[in-house]
Amino acid sequence: MTLRIIATGGTFDKHYDEIAGQLSFANSHLPAVIARARLTVPATLEELPLLDSLDMQDIDRRRVLASCDRSEENAIVIIHGTDTMQDTARVLGAAQLAKTIVLTGAMIPYAIQGSDAQFNFGFACGVAQVLTHGVYVAMNGRVFPWDQVQKNRVAGVFEPIEPQD
Amino acid sequence: MTLRIIATGGTFDKHYDEIAGQLSFANSHLPAVIARARLTVPATLEELPLLDSLDMQDIDRRRVLASCDRSEENAIVIIHGTDTMQDTARVLGAAQLAKTIVLTGAMIPYAIQGSDAQFNFGFACGVAQVLTHGVYVAMNGRVFPWDQVQKNRVAGVFEPIEPQD
Amino acid sequence: MTLRIIATGGTFDKHYDEIAGQLSFANSHLPAVIARARLTVPATLEELPLLDSLDMQDIDRRRVLASCDRSEENAIVIIHGTDTMQDTARVLGAAQLAKTIVLTGAMIPYAIQGSDAQFNFGFACGVAQVLTHGVYVAMNGRVFPWDQVQKNRVAGVFEPIEPQD
Amino acid sequence: MTLRIIATGGTFDKHYDEIAGQLSFANSHLPAVIARARLTVPATLEELPLLDSLDMQDIDRRRVLASCDRSEENAIVIIHGTDTMQDTARVLGAAQLAKTIVLTGAMIPYAIQGSDAQFNFGFACGVAQVLTHGVYVAMNGRVFPWDQVQKNRVAGVFEPIEPQD
Repeated sequence: MTLRIIATGGTFDKHYDEIAGQLSFANSHLPAVIARARLTVPATLEELPLLDSLDMQDIDRRRVLASCDRSEENAIVIIHGTDTMQDTARVLGAAQLAKTIVLTGAMIPYAIQGSDAQFNFGFACGVAQVLTHGVYVAMNGRVFPWDQVQKNRVAGVFEPIEPQD
Repeated sequence: MTLRIIATGGTFDKHYDEIAGQLSFANSHLPAVIARARLTVPATLEELPLLDSLDMQDIDRRRVLASCDRSEENAIVIIHGTDTMQDTARVLGAAQLAKTIVLTGAMIPYAIQGSDAQFNFGFACGVAQVLTHGVYVAMNGRVFPWDQVQKNRVAGVFEPIEPQD
Repeated sequence: MTLRIIATGGTFDKHYDEIAGQLSFANSHLPAVIARARLTVPATLEELPLLDSLDMQDIDRRRVLASCDRSEENAIVIIHGTDTMQDTARVLGAAQLAKTIVLTGAMIPYAIQGSDAQFNFGFACGVAQVLTHGVYVAMNGRVFPWDQVQKNRVAGVFEPIEPQD
Repeated sequence: MTLRIIATGGTFDKHYDEIAGQLSFANSHLPAVIARARLTVPATLEELPLLDSLDMQDIDRRRVLASCDRSEENAIVIIHGTDTMQDTARVLGAAQLAKTIVLTGAMIPYAIQGSDAQFNFGFACGVAQVLTHGVYVAMNGRVFPWDQVQKNRVAGVFEPIEPQD
């Protein structure tokens, strides 16, 4: 088993820019996150442009799909913003690749006290190795099929929905 | 799917005792660890006596087994010290319960910078929901069957071994 | 020696609001910051409305002055946003109270990795007990008289200036 | 004003050795601690052998004294274990150097959740620049003259004593 980890930005990976006084993107935290996980499973990190998922356009989702398509690893974890995670999941799900693709992210940035980033990343790295081929969202300690999930923005959690035609 | 989480101590859960100047056990960190994971999957925490796994005796392992046996949840995550995790796994594995039991722990305590505790806990919570019934050790981003794993104490990682008769 | 600690907000005290996806104010971190400092010097915490210092108006600065004026403690530490710290310092300095008043803050919120908040707070709590009466800004490991300091917003550091008439 | 910072070990600087499963010394955390303080005051770090202060011998205390004696900076902060901080303070105090020397440390290592290390270091860096020449212990948000302090090991705090002849 080998893992591909694709960083696309999102809350998980935001830094505090002390000059601007805002959260934004700089170098990805994923190399540090991966190092502290002490992985012995072979894992390759691919960094795509780091974006707030509200800023993601179709072209960005197609770039994520292209990365999954050409991945030599069949177990893929994608770090993604939570606001449009379900939209990227739909683009990937429709492509029906013969791979196990798990999207995850965080409600609190990795660099901020009380973050769920490491838990979610660990959870995703686990289920990506065990689930059958398909596209999944993994958040709040649950696995959702790509077409049966939505973010409840008021409650700040992911919840199941009926698959949509 | 519902989860049972059983705390047994180990490096994962050690605190720094500032009067003694040593790492030891106090209240478990698991309630805090679980809270920050923002679980929506139903999860029950059971705290057994918190022990350094080098201090675990047969009676302690049988208590863990008894907890697994009477658990109403079929997906069980056990937080355990790394030094004898494989021994407890063998006790549980031999019992052949119709449940999915995943042992995990940490090389660095949750409360110390650079800890792998949250990653490992997330990983275990994920695979415990997906793997078929059996007993597993989940460390270093890998899943090991209970009779095919050992801790390499020099390297500080878990590695596969041939099953022993 | 007794200390009064006045919280006014600023970067030091910002929280990440996971529903809004932004940094904002909630309960002050100061009670936690003070607890971990293990103070035995008597210290009283006073929480004023927590504001981004760019949002501070004259009335807000006069409220800070009023708190200093009626403080029973003669050593006062004020946690303040960095952007207009020098402006509040001028209001306090002009009042010539017979007290030692030290303004400090942080470039990175207390709750974010790599924060300077605890260092700055410790620094300010130290010099507030030792300096003669007057108003000071303590940032970057330096003490500045209230009328001889400005924030260099490009470099993100405080620097000395000639006193202005 | 310039600062000399002398690292001698102690609880402040302990690391968790994940292979041995114990706290011990490795590279000092002081370079990281100093970097995040964003000092603009010129500061020089000198690393002496890192020791648990219970292991400090007379020769070790004389080495600290020698470092203070030849320091070009007149404001000196010493990071030291808490258990014998008062003993090293007595060696330094007796030497009556024309410098301001402040010893500090931590009850919880810098690398462990809830540490007082950064507060104490900030506090010491502040008072070292402001106090008159002499030797002081700075802990628990208080400054103690070198001959009027002891650690209360039961309570885990420093407290004043009458100077001893």
